[in-house]
This record gives sequence, structure tokens and C-alpha cells, in this order.
Amino acid sequence: MSKDPLREGRLGDERPAEVWEYLSSMQADRNIGQADILVDISHLLMLEKQEIVDRDSAKEIMKVLLDFHKNGLPDSVYDDKYEDIHAGIEAHIIDKTGIDKGGRLHVGRSRNDEVATCVRVRLRNDIIEILDEILYLRSLLIRKSSENKETFMPGFTHLQHAQPTTLAHYFMNYEQAFGRDFERLGDSYLRVDQCPLGAAAFASTGYPIDREYTAALLGFSEVLENSMDCVSGRDFCLEVISDFSIAMTNLSRMCEEIILWSSSFVRFVNLADAYCSTSSIMPQKKNPDCAEIMRGKTASVAGALSAAITLVKGLPMSYNRDMQDLWPHLWRAISDTKLSLKIMTGMIETAEYNKERMEEEAGKGFATATELADVMVREFGLPFRTAHGIVGRAVRLGKLDIDTLEEAAVEMAGISLKGKGMDEKAVARALDVEFSVSERAATGGPAPVAVQKSIDRRSLALEEDKEWLNDLKCRIEESNDKMIKKAEELIS
Amino acid sequence: MSKDPLREGRLGDERPAEVWEYLSSMQADRNIGQADILVDISHLLMLEKQEIVDRDSAKEIMKVLLDFHKNGLPDSVYDDKYEDIHAGIEAHIIDKTGIDKGGRLHVGRSRNDEVATCVRVRLRNDIIEILDEILYLRSLLIRKSSENKETFMPGFTHLQHAQPTTLAHYFMNYEQAFGRDFERLGDSYLRVDQCPLGAAAFASTGYPIDREYTAALLGFSEVLENSMDCVSGRDFCLEVISDFSIAMTNLSRMCEEIILWSSSFVRFVNLADAYCSTSSIMPQKKNPDCAEIMRGKTASVAGALSAAITLVKGLPMSYNRDMQDLWPHLWRAISDTKLSLKIMTGMIETAEYNKERMEEEAGKGFATATELADVMVREFGLPFRTAHGIVGRAVRLGKLDIDTLEEAAVEMAGISLKGKGMDEKAVARALDVEFSVSERAATGGPAPVAVQKSIDRRSLALEEDKEWLNDLKCRIEESNDKMIKKAEELIS
Amino acid sequence: MSKDPLREGRLGDERPAEVWEYLSSMQADRNIGQADILVDISHLLMLEKQEIVDRDSAKEIMKVLLDFHKNGLPDSVYDDKYEDIHAGIEAHIIDKTGIDKGGRLHVGRSRNDEVATCVRVRLRNDIIEILDEILYLRSLLIRKSSENKETFMPGFTHLQHAQPTTLAHYFMNYEQAFGRDFERLGDSYLRVDQCPLGAAAFASTGYPIDREYTAALLGFSEVLENSMDCVSGRDFCLEVISDFSIAMTNLSRMCEEIILWSSSFVRFVNLADAYCSTSSIMPQKKNPDCAEIMRGKTASVAGALSAAITLVKGLPMSYNRDMQDLWPHLWRAISDTKLSLKIMTGMIETAEYNKERMEEEAGKGFATATELADVMVREFGLPFRTAHGIVGRAVRLGKLDIDTLEEAAVEMAGISLKGKGMDEKAVARALDVEFSVSERAATGGPAPVAVQKSIDRRSLALEEDKEWLNDLKCRIEESNDKMIKKAEELIS
Amino acid sequence: MSKDPLREGRLGDERPAEVWEYLSSMQADRNIGQADILVDISHLLMLEKQEIVDRDSAKEIMKVLLDFHKNGLPDSVYDDKYEDIHAGIEAHIIDKTGIDKGGRLHVGRSRNDEVATCVRVRLRNDIIEILDEILYLRSLLIRKSSENKETFMPGFTHLQHAQPTTLAHYFMNYEQAFGRDFERLGDSYLRVDQCPLGAAAFASTGYPIDREYTAALLGFSEVLENSMDCVSGRDFCLEVISDFSIAMTNLSRMCEEIILWSSSFVRFVNLADAYCSTSSIMPQKKNPDCAEIMRGKTASVAGALSAAITLVKGLPMSYNRDMQDLWPHLWRAISDTKLSLKIMTGMIETAEYNKERMEEEAGKGFATATELADVMVREFGLPFRTAHGIVGRAVRLGKLDIDTLEEAAVEMAGISLKGKGMDEKAVARALDVEFSVSERAATGGPAPVAVQKSIDRRSLALEEDKEWLNDLKCRIEESNDKMIKKAEELIS
Repeated sequence: MSKDPLREGRLGDERPAEVWEYLSSMQADRNIGQADILVDISHLLMLEKQEIVDRDSAKEIMKVLLDFHKNGLPDSVYDDKYEDIHAGIEAHIIDKTGIDKGGRLHVGRSRNDEVATCVRVRLRNDIIEILDEILYLRSLLIRKSSENKETFMPGFTHLQHAQPTTLAHYFMNYEQAFGRDFERLGDSYLRVDQCPLGAAAFASTGYPIDREYTAALLGFSEVLENSMDCVSGRDFCLEVISDFSIAMTNLSRMCEEIILWSSSFVRFVNLADAYCSTSSIMPQKKNPDCAEIMRGKTASVAGALSAAITLVKGLPMSYNRDMQDLWPHLWRAISDTKLSLKIMTGMIETAEYNKERMEEEAGKGFATATELADVMVREFGLPFRTAHGIVGRAVRLGKLDIDTLEEAAVEMAGISLKGKGMDEKAVARALDVEFSVSERAATGGPAPVAVQKSIDRRSLALEEDKEWLNDLKCRIEESNDKMIKKAEELIS
Repeated sequence: MSKDPLREGRLGDERPAEVWEYLSSMQADRNIGQADILVDISHLLMLEKQEIVDRDSAKEIMKVLLDFHKNGLPDSVYDDKYEDIHAGIEAHIIDKTGIDKGGRLHVGRSRNDEVATCVRVRLRNDIIEILDEILYLRSLLIRKSSENKETFMPGFTHLQHAQPTTLAHYFMNYEQAFGRDFERLGDSYLRVDQCPLGAAAFASTGYPIDREYTAALLGFSEVLENSMDCVSGRDFCLEVISDFSIAMTNLSRMCEEIILWSSSFVRFVNLADAYCSTSSIMPQKKNPDCAEIMRGKTASVAGALSAAITLVKGLPMSYNRDMQDLWPHLWRAISDTKLSLKIMTGMIETAEYNKERMEEEAGKGFATATELADVMVREFGLPFRTAHGIVGRAVRLGKLDIDTLEEAAVEMAGISLKGKGMDEKAVARALDVEFSVSERAATGGPAPVAVQKSIDRRSLALEEDKEWLNDLKCRIEESNDKMIKKAEELIS
Repeated sequence: MSKDPLREGRLGDERPAEVWEYLSSMQADRNIGQADILVDISHLLMLEKQEIVDRDSAKEIMKVLLDFHKNGLPDSVYDDKYEDIHAGIEAHIIDKTGIDKGGRLHVGRSRNDEVATCVRVRLRNDIIEILDEILYLRSLLIRKSSENKETFMPGFTHLQHAQPTTLAHYFMNYEQAFGRDFERLGDSYLRVDQCPLGAAAFASTGYPIDREYTAALLGFSEVLENSMDCVSGRDFCLEVISDFSIAMTNLSRMCEEIILWSSSFVRFVNLADAYCSTSSIMPQKKNPDCAEIMRGKTASVAGALSAAITLVKGLPMSYNRDMQDLWPHLWRAISDTKLSLKIMTGMIETAEYNKERMEEEAGKGFATATELADVMVREFGLPFRTAHGIVGRAVRLGKLDIDTLEEAAVEMAGISLKGKGMDEKAVARALDVEFSVSERAATGGPAPVAVQKSIDRRSLALEEDKEWLNDLKCRIEESNDKMIKKAEELIS
Repeated sequence: MSKDPLREGRLGDERPAEVWEYLSSMQADRNIGQADILVDISHLLMLEKQEIVDRDSAKEIMKVLLDFHKNGLPDSVYDDKYEDIHAGIEAHIIDKTGIDKGGRLHVGRSRNDEVATCVRVRLRNDIIEILDEILYLRSLLIRKSSENKETFMPGFTHLQHAQPTTLAHYFMNYEQAFGRDFERLGDSYLRVDQCPLGAAAFASTGYPIDREYTAALLGFSEVLENSMDCVSGRDFCLEVISDFSIAMTNLSRMCEEIILWSSSFVRFVNLADAYCSTSSIMPQKKNPDCAEIMRGKTASVAGALSAAITLVKGLPMSYNRDMQDLWPHLWRAISDTKLSLKIMTGMIETAEYNKERMEEEAGKGFATATELADVMVREFGLPFRTAHGIVGRAVRLGKLDIDTLEEAAVEMAGISLKGKGMDEKAVARALDVEFSVSERAATGGPAPVAVQKSIDRRSLALEEDKEWLNDLKCRIEESNDKMIKKAEELIS
């Protein structure tokens, strides 16, 4: 039976079960098993090229690695008797090739740089997948906007009916926000895409390793230089969890609306059954559970961020075991974010939007009163504050017709609106929803013509983002193919 | 094949796989499976007593429940095809007894009050186990203190050698802190030990249920009254996670010392191998990994608290699905805390304390300079600030002998210490570690005589806490036995 | 000009301005200025009693202290030239009495135990004030409940109309929750009400101090024993911030409803103008700003808790300067919580509740469908799950009349409801709001009779809590009066 | 007396004092007073250009604005009788120019877009200042590294002596980390540098405003398009607080070392007195208070982040008053970060590094054992795991000489090291600190030659970063000058 190769020399094996459980990172390590094989392959190719390991040993080890790469890792490498996946894989290699050969793979590196590299290899893929999900959501929002440029609805401030807008304007608001989430995570990618391999425990190694070579094999843009920083720097991890947490707050805010809009009071949206649940005791309910869970996951990712910062804050140089406990927070944040984006896209895509209800509410609650005050300024020359005061007083009096306004104007400012030529028709026009919206045609405003311009601009931006992401994917894929080919040549 | 009984009426089943994954609470529900059976038994006994369910149906259902209670839940109740454990159990009951009988168990309650009750039943046990672990740690600290009342060591402020103290005094410091953790969690227990069963969805039920009866069967101290609060109140959960988080900070602080004291610089402690690991690249290392992981877990529990507060903060009345996502944070916090206490006890118990190194350091760094200043005040009548200033100046000059002190005294305050009768002997005595410690005999001070008094008082407190906890355990066990007996009578 | 008396001996004064700013705790220390004088008085009385300080010096110092106690601290003690308030006060005393007398006040203690005592003295008062605010809010909620036992409104789950309830039931839900906040904070009070004075830097002192005496003078219930724990234990602080944070989540949840209920969609509540604001651009708006700010303050207090835990987590024994940065979080949490409770009470008290709108909505959204399913079980003998399924299907078909139900029953379960004797009248009765509510008379349910019982029980509990709090207040006041009297006797 | 102009129309003035306090943002608004004037000037120039406001009114208002710009805002604009700074400034303008003219400034905008713009204007400057501080710290670290390439010291993992390294390698580790902080904040800057002005309440305005013009006047790179996102998007704020929080963790980790290295055990560093404090009771102490406070501030900034995410998470579109409570967290995080960077630079610059102590410790604790195992592999052909095992066993036996190693080799692996040609000289060379370090010359390693390459590369990167930052500063300054010139032309 293979034993944990790390504990044989220095320490005994008489460990209580709870300590094994406490120290084991195996559950979280399932996230980096495949990445670890890639890292091992790159390291071995370099060791052989640099003649640190003889070709014969390299061949034997590489056979095992390629087998694991192609057929997947056997579940036995995750056995709890190993402290981590690195020990599990090494034990298997030694089992199959003997200690004299298999014992050479670990030359010139340490678990410290190995795990840091594995995490970055895996994280690159996760980020790319999440960026893909964001792109899909953004393109959906743009499509929905194109279809709803004249779907009038009330806009809210303080959850009060404020001014009318359109569903398209609302969706483009989120498209713009998710666009920033894309950018932000894309920026972070550049700081993840640096290779720490070769840093060893923290002081690099005396072997003549070639760090640029392994970095290139693994498709990294560059070597992460200082070897102490390689194994102890964790800000890349805090940064991406921050990105996820921020993206989740954007999703969570959208959920607030989905939940509210699904309520009997509002009925702006009818979610597809698939995204809802019913009640065990109230058979009539159709609950927006996915949106609620998403708010919950937002809290969860925020908690992961808080934990991660708290954990890293106190650590002196260089490696400390606390760091092992950082990864579960990372993997959880990734999984929650990825799934949430997918679910949000599905919810938005399959929901029915009740345009009648939206339009019905668009003009309620004196929502066009601002426009009325503006018309007083623009067409009848009142100072803004005065017009604002008059309309406010009229709202308090309960009505927005010419007579009430006149009463308010006289009382507040000693002004006669009628005397300035204002009549009921002018009031009615100012209060009309479609008029009010179409007037708001400044850059980024809700007027259909302004929203169309936004759609055009943002569609272009989306295309550029897609291309950038495709380039990333291609570069990783190509370098991966090239590395595997080299590995196959070695064993052939 | 059994299907999820809740979705048959209102909603279709055409749900994408990721939505099932997103909504499922199955993984977390493994924590409450056994508790759920107890809750079902109590509910069924009450329904039968109140003649809400006929005896015959009750018998058939109870047979299944008692089977699950005695032989454990089959793994199939956790199948992912059910949204949660409650649906899984109900489906199994209906499978075995038919819808006409099995469909009656859920009368007069909802998943909302059911899950709230299950969590509290399980949580009571977890709290008791954690209280037990705290008691064991406290008694160990008291024992270690008894053995080390004259093990002199330096005390630190700002990580600087400050004044000498003893290892016993240091241990009693933590015993007192963990004593508060015990009290705090014990107080919270009283707010957990209230039964929400019968609140149904939030508005209770029209069936003639007997909430006092189910509460008594389950061994709760009282009924949690308002039914809306029963299903929506989550402050009990925030409170216990707070308690765990605070206890973890106390553990984490102890870990800071364990790690520091294990370093080559300090060597106050030599941890047992079982609690350490070695390095894959540095064979000479013996790393205090358990203590480091414990600091990491502290961050994790703090993150769970942060997530939980963030989650609960935004929820309107009454039940919202976000709440489902609260439980994983709770279970994780419990598991981390329980295991950490156990590990800490093991680490402290098995460690070797290097008394020689401790005593060697106890007098270093001018650690007894305070005593010297105090002696100047007490025996030679100087004002405190003046004595403090003279000693500080002498430290700056590099030595604490009578000549340096005299020089400082003249320079600082125009005073001659020698003139006041101070000599080298008086200085030496004041700077002696054992003298310095033994002088500090006020309540709670480090003098052996004071520490012995603390040990006596705290041992008494510990005994009282043990008795209180035993009473709790007995009450739960007795009510549980009584309930199972009633259930067996029903089916006999 | 007085100088900082602490820096004269050991360190120079050539400090850059930003370091002074960085190290200063003066802004936060304004919270403990008055408390510090009380602590000084108690310490001085003890020093004199124990003959550690001569009566003459004690008299002179006491004159200054009593002056500060009666007339308030001069603003000059908070001058930025002192690092903290303790240095500021000591400098003033030395200025007025000379170093030979004034320099003796600090004998037998350190800033470490001094600040810990000051914070606890001040915190006791803050907790009492907050407990008072909670009591007032609870009694208001009970009063409002008494007036609204038959004010029917819809209850919500998932923000969906679920089942009818009453405004009284809703208010009693919060009363019960705030009752727990009261208990929780009351429990924490006991851990705050322990006196650390006499612990000095952490190792107590060689002077013959009497810790029990100062504790009694300051009205503490007991001495906090272990002197290291006295200066380094901060769990009492984490605990109360947790309490505040939990209370704030309860307030924040209530705010969610206030905001929603104020919206044009719902209009259940009309807040008093005083608690609202209008818009600078939308004159018709009346925004529930206080409720929104309260949600924001909840996040702020949660952030204070997170900061506090993160700060304490990494600290080794005993005092570290990081701890100074803990207090601002505490004071901010206290101020936010105290003010929020006051504002909530004012908002609830002055709001108008729109009973018509509530009743209009109470029966909407098939909110009584549960009762209908229950009636099928109770009166017509259907299994619960079957009844639930039938009603659910009928809701999907769009109506809850006897014909639709019959159709659903046949289709779902091959059952004829009409055949079992159910008719339109039975359906109508089951769907009636008042009937539905009045049926739910189990302990804690919404039926007026059940709510009245809750009101009775909770009113009793409230009275007991008031008495307990009054006792606390009296004890502190009495000991304070007694101490001041002793101080006056000393100088007379 | 001027009154709050916003409350005159819609709401009364009978507000309790605590509500004023609760709603006021005045304290935080002091951060944006100057920025507000710039925003007002740009808005007014645009209104006049677009003929929305007549030239005459514009002139009168501009006179007041320019006066405030040049001479600073009078303190009366911050009077608590105004809800915020915007109301305060508007009231002053109306006072000086009359409602008929002064009431026109607010046309075509709302406080929602105004405050968002003010914050971004101010935040741009703060970010630039912080970037400057990071640059200065980085250049200091590079300089200190250049001077210490051969200052040998032990490197640590798990706080255990691990392998020797140099002080230069250690400093370059942090330089690289702070380099990422610079990049990260620089990336965020691009998302801050977008102009929301003209979005009004959230739906833009019907006035013919020119958003591109105001954005250019204020020196923004671009207009932030969608008007709803302009007023409700707060991810830019979460992002920068994340950046600050991450930078603080890097600082905090450095503080861990400063504190440890200052301790009597380690004595690697002797901080300048200015950054330390002494004890009130222990005159010999010299405490690293600034480093401790910095750890505390790190917790504080982390708490600000946690609060900010919690606050934003629950907000529906578009503006909600909770958002007002976000700013204090932002300003606090900025101030803590800026000051901490400055203090860190000062501490590092003025500290004395004890090279003798460092070198003395560099070889302790078997720190070169890794090199010994590596030499066995490289020069004597052992497999890595075997060599590691042998050295580990020898460490356990207590010595690293040829005889002990031989014993271990035979026992562990049945190998004779002596037989392979290894002798005491080979062992001694492998264990030599300087040899061990100089061997580690791979990219980023601690060998002096490798560190010199790092210094060269990083110095270049630093120069590029400086230029980039200078360009930013110039662009803002130029646009500002241009705008003020236009404003002066208007009034001339």
C-alpha cells in the first residue's frame, strides 16, 4: 500500500483521526486535480530538457501523467490517507515507476509553488467560463432591449413611482453594469495569468531550472518573478473573489426587482415555472425561488470575501498553512457566481413581461410631475425651484390640473400660470407618459431614439469583448496542445 | 418511482438541471435527517392524540418513522430528485403506506415550521457537544495551571518582553476567556431551546393542534409563541454563529502564541508530531500546521457570520427562500468550531513546555523594570511618574544598575537615589524575576498564591457548569426516550 | 505648556505630524472622558485607603477630579498633543498639583486596565439606554397590536400573498423578536459588568491594591479576575457589537416592509412627513428615507462587527495597540443602534395604517387557498397531499369555485368533491378572510383570541424586563452617589 | 435666514432633532464640497451654452461659484439645517442672486447625478494621491533592495526558519506585490473616470443638455452612458474599496514582520523612535505602535468593504437613500489607506536593519538542509524523495554531519553516502548560507545576481508607471484650468 511520501522521514504516523480530517485539503483539491497533471507535465518536460532528470526516468513518469491526463485521475489519488492531491499523485507515480524514478518528479519545486500554479491554471479556465456567461447575459439584455424600446414602465427611486421609463432602458442599465463586471474580471485575469512555478518553497532552487519554459508550456503570459511573492502572494485570489462578489451584488439587485415584479401587487413579470417553486401548504403560490436563492448566494460570496481577507490579513512571509483554507472560499465563490449567471440568463430569457401592467403603472403616482415642472420652466419661463415648489404643492392638494396648479402658483409664488398662457391642454401633454419619455433623448436617456444609440454602441463593445475572450481561449488551447504533443514525443 | 410530491399540482417538471442543483438543499439537509424523524414522530403523536389523523393511518406512518429512527435513514431519501429532505422522507412514507395514509402526515404544518424545528433540535445537540468540548479544554487549562504555578515566563505587550509572569497565569487567562464562551453559548441555548412547530407557513393552522404537546415531546423548554416569528426569526442562528466566531477568535489568539512559541526564536513549546507536518522540500521543518489551520478556520467562521448577517438583513416577512442558504453557513461554523476545540485540547495536552527557555527569557528585555520603578516609589518615596522617567532614561542608557540609575535620576529630576538610600542590592532584588512575580499577589495577579486562589474559584465554577450541562443532557434524553416509548405503544 | 508625560523618559519628540494623527485616539476618547474621571476617583480613593498614596496628595488630586466630574472636562484635555485622554487628564492634574503629588495617581495601574475599565463604565450606560429604547419600542408594538387585532392584512411568503393575517399578529412578531434582542443584550451586560481595574499592564502590580474595593465603588457586580484577561480580553466587545448587529437586522427587516408598504403599489402605510424626504427633481415624491437610512446603518453596524472580529482574531497576548482601533467601531455601532431604535419607534408611532387597503388585499391572490385545502381534509376527509394537489390545480385553471375544484379533483385523483357533499357555500366560507383568520387560534396564531393571549403574556414579560432594568439603573446610581460622597469627604 | 429649498413645497418642517441627525450627510459631504463647485461650474457653463439658462442668470450664479472655488466654501454651507452640501450651496446661491436667477442652476439635473459626479471627481484625486504613495513606497523598496543584496537572513515558512535568503529578496517580494496594487487601482481608475452628470434622477431630462460637454469640462475620459446606471451603479465604489482593502492586507502582512522583527527574540529591525511609543507602566518598552495600528486599520478597511457590499446588495433600482451611507465607508477607507502607505514608507525608510542578527540567524534551524538534500541529488545522484527522507531523519537525530547522514541513509534506504563519495567537506559546503543563496539564481530567486536582474526590470516598470500617472495628473489639471478660464470669461 502506498503511504504519504512526505511523512516518512521527519514525523511519525500516530495521528488522531480528527487531525487528519482537520489538515486534509482533499475535498477542495478535487478542483485542481486535472490542473495538477498539466503542471506536472510541464515541470517534467523542463526537468528533462535541462537534464535535471534523466530521459529514462522522465519517460516512465510521463507515461503515468499522460494516462492520468487522458483518462482522468483515478479516485484513489483523492484518498484521505494523503494530506493533499499532490501527495496522492506522487504516491501513485512512485507506486508505478519505483521510488528511484518516480521520486525525481518533485525535484526543483515544492508544494508551495505547485499548488499556486495549479490554482492559477484552474482559475484561468473558471474566469473564462464566467466571462462567457457574462457575455451571454449581456447579449440577451441587448436583445430584450431591442424588443422593448417602447415598453413603457415606471422608474423608481426609493421604491416610489418616480418617472416613466422603458423596459429597454432598464435592461440596458444592467447590460452596462455587467459590462463593467466583464472588464473588471478581465483586468484581474491579467494578474492571474502569471506563472509561479519554479519558486519552490519560496527561495527558488539551486537546480538549473528554466521558469520561462514551463510558463510558456502552460500558456501563461509571463513568469511571476520574485519567488517569495510567488508562494505567499494571495492578492490575486482576494481580487477575483472581490470581482465575483461585486458581480453578485449586481445580480442580487436584479433579483430584488424580479421578486418584487413577480408579486401580486406588481405583476410586471411572470417567471417560467422552471425557476419557481410552490408551497407545501399554500397550493396557489408560485414563488420566485431562484431569485431568492441568488440573493442568498450573494451573501455567501460576500462572506467568502470577508473570510478570505480576514485570513490573509494576518499572515507573515512566506507560506503558512492557513492559506490552504483560502481555496474552499475561492471555489465556492466561483461555483456560486457561475451558476447564478447561468440561472439569471435563463430566468430573464424565459420570463413573460406584462407590458400592459407596466404601461398601466407608468403614469401613476404623479410620475410625470417632473416633466410638468420642466415644461413650466422651458415653455413658461419659471425658475426651476419655483416650478418644483408649485408642482409639489399641487400634488399635496391632490391633483395635477390647471386649476390646482394655478392655486398653488398664486399661493407659493404669487404667480398666475394662466396669465402666462398655460392651459389644461399644456398640462395634459406634459403629463403624457410617451411624451415624457420621448423628450428624454440626451445620451443614455430612456427615449427610444437614445436607447437605440446605446444598443448600437454597446453591441459593438460586446463584439470586441467576444473577440478578446476568444483570443484568450485560443492561446490557452494552443499551448496546451503543443505541450501534450511534446509529452507524447518524449514517451514515443 | 416516487416523485417529489410537492410539484405535482401547481408546477410542471421541465426544469433545467442547473436549476435543480441551484435550489436543492440536500447536501446541507444531511445535517437534519435524524432530527426530522424525531420532529415527524412528535407531530404524528400529536395529530393522533388530537384526532386530526386517524389511529390506523398514524400507525402505518409511525412504523416507517420508527424504522428510520432505529435503522437510520436510507440514503435514497437524500436523492437529488427531491428538493429537500422533507420531500424525500414524505415520498418514502407515501410509497410505503399509500397516499391516502401517508399523505396525512403533513397536516397542520408546513416545511417552514418543520425545518425551523429540525434545525433547533439538531442545533441543541451541537451546542451541547461544543459546550462539552469547552469544558474539557477549561479543565485541561486548570490542570496545566496547577502544574505550572512557578513556571516563570515573560509576559508580552506589543510582542515585546514586558513583565515576568507564569505559565499558569497565562493558561488561566484563557480558561477565564473560554469560561465566558461557555456562558455566552449557554445563554444562547435558552433562545434555541424554543419550539416553533405548529406555526405552519407562518399563520399557524386551523386544525386543533396542540403546540405545547409537541414541544414537550421534543424536550423543548417552551413553545416559541408568535407563529410568524417562528418561521421568519433567524436571530437565534446569527447569535450562535456569533458565539462560535467569538470562541474561534479566542482559539486563534492562542494559536498565535503556539505558532510563535514553536519558532526557532522562541522555543517555549514543542508540539507533538501528530499536530505538525513537515515540508516536501525542507526536511528539517516541523510546522505547527494545526494551529495555522485553526487561524484559517477562524476566518472561515467569521466569514460565515458575515454571510449570515448579510443574508438575513434584507428579508421581509415571513419566509423567503434565501433562508435556505443560511444553514450551510451554520453547519460549517459548527463543524469548524467543534473540531477546533478538540484539536486545541489535544495540542495543549500533548505539547512539551520548555521551562528552561521560558525562565531564561523571563528576565530579559528589562522585563522587571516596572518592578524597579515601583520599588523606587514604595520604598524610596518617589512619585510614580518620576520613577518611571528615571528607569526609562536608564534603559535608554543601556543598563539598570545603581550608577546608571543615579545618573538618570540626577539628570531627569535632580534627585540622588543613593542619597535616598538605594543601593545595588536593592536594585538587584527589584529586578529578580521570582521576587517580581511573587509581589504581584492582588486578585487575579500572577503570584503563585494568587493563581492558586484563581484555580480554586474557577474549579468551583467549572463544576457548576458541568452540572448545568448534565441537567440539559438528561432532560433531552429523558424526553426523547419517553417520546419513542409512546410511538412504540402506538404501533403495538 | 504641559507635555505628554509618557514620552519624556524613553523616546524623543521628533514625530512627523501624520504619525501623531495615526496614533491618536483622541476623537474616540471623547466617549470615555467622563467615565475616566469616575475611574480615577475610585482608584484614588482606593490608593488613599490602602495608604499607597498619602492623604495630602490624594486630597489635591481629588479636588481636580471632582471639579472635572461636576463641571465637565475642559476641552483642553482632548488636545491633539496628548496621545489619548488618559495622558490629557494626567497632564492637567500634574499641572495643577505638581509632579510630586499629581504624579502619584497612576500608581498601581496602567493605561491598559484603565482604558478597559473606562470603556466598560461607559458601555454599561450605553447598553442601559439601548435596553430602554427596546422596551419603549416593544411597549409601542404591544399597544398597536391591541388596537389592530381585527385589522386584516395579507401575510407574505416569498413576497407573494400567502395567507391572511392581522396587523396585530405582524406587530407581535416583531415584539417577540425585539424581546430576544433585549434578553440577548441583557445577558451580555453581565459580561460587561465586571471590573478589570487593578490588572495594570497585564500582570497586576506589587502595590497592596484592593481590587474588590474599586469594583464596588464603580458599581460593578464583580471583579474580572485574571489580570492578563482583563487587559487583553475583547470578546465582551465583539459580543455587544454582535448583539447590536442582530438587533439592527431585525430593524432592517421591518424597514423592508415600511418601504414596500409605502410604495404606490401597496399603500398600507402613510409615514409622517417628518420621517420622509422629497426629491429635488420630482416634486410629487414622499420618500421613506429614514427606513432606507436604517437599512444602510444596519450594513454599517455589520461592517463594524466584521472589522472588530478581523482585528481581534490575530492578536497574541496581551495588549497590542491594534486594540485602540477597536473602540471607534464600538462607539459607531452604539450610536447607530440607539438612534435607529428611537427613529423606528417614532416612525411606527406616527404612521397612519391604511386598514382599507390591507383588508382589500387580504383575500387576494388566493390567499385563503390553504384554508380551503384544510377544509377538504377536515370536513370532507381527503388526505392532505391530495387536497393540496386539487387546490393547486384549480388555481392553475384560474378559479376557486366548486366546479373548477370538481374538475381538478376528478382529473388529479379520480375523486368527486360534490359526491362527498362539498358545495359552493362550503367553498365560499372556507375562502372568507375573517373565517380563515379566526380559525387559526392555536398558540401564537393570528386569530384575535390567540393574539390577545400573546398580548397578555408579553405584557407581563415586558413588566418584568422593566423592573430588571430599573434595578440595574438604581444600583449604578447608588454606588455612584456613594463614591462621590466619599470623594467629597476626602477633600473636606 | 436661508432655508432648505427642497422642503418648501411638499413636506412640512416639523422634524424631530434626531431625524435631522439621522438623515444628514453633512459630515461626509465635507469630502465633496470643493468637487461640488467644479461640478456646478461645468453644469452652468453647459446650461448657458445650450441656452437653457440665460446668460445673465448664468453670470450672477457663476460669480458666486468662482468665489467659492477660489476662496473656499464658507463653513455656513455645511450648516446642519441643510440636509446635504448640495442644498447648502444652492441656498447660498439663491440668497446672493435671488430665487429667480439662483433657482435655475439645478435645471436639468438632480441630486442623484450631482452627488455621483462629485464623488467621482473627488475620488479621482484620491486615487491619484494613493497611487503616488504606492510609487514612493515601491521606489524605496527598490532602493533598499539595491543596498541589501548580500544581507543574508533566514526565510520563513510556518514562521519556522526555512531557507536562507536576503533582505533584498524580501523587499522585492513586497515591491512586486505593491506593483500589483498599483495596477489594480489604476485599472479601477478607468471605471471611476466616467461622467454621470446629466442622468438627473435616473431618467435623464427633457432639457437639451450636452453631456459630452460637461464630461470634457470636468476632464473625464468619457460619459457614463445609461442614465439609470449613472445614479444607481455603485460597483465602482465597491471596487475601489476592495482595492484599498487588498493593498491594506499587503501592508498588514509587512507589519506582522515589523512587529516580530522588533521583538526581543528577533531584533532584526530597530524602528525609529518616531514610529514607536513607550508604556505608561513599563519604562523600558519601545513598542511598534504604528505597525500595530496599521493592522488595526486593515481590519477597519475590510469592515468598510463588508459594510459597503452588504449595503449595496439589497438595493433595487434606482436611487435609494441607503446609498448615502455608503460614502462614509469610502472616505474612511481612503483616509486609512493613504495615511498607512505614508507611514509604512516612513517606517521602512527610517528603520535600522540589524544585519549581524540576520546573518546570525540565516543558517540556524537547519535552514540550509534543503540545499543539502539537493546536493545529494545533483552531485551524488539520489532520487529527490530519498534524499529528502535521509536529511529529515538526520535532523531528527539532531545533527547534520556526514556520520549522522550516513546512519540515516543506511537505515532509511540501505544506501551508503560515503560509498557514493560524499564527505564532511561536501556537507559543510552544502550547508553554507552564502553558497546556498548564491546557487538560487533562477528568475526571481534570492541569489544576488538574480535579485539585481529583478531590480533592473522592476525599475523600468516603475518608470513606466510614473509616466502613466503623470499623464493622468496633467490631463485633469489642464481640463480644470480650461474650465475655470471659460467660467472667468463668462463673468467678464
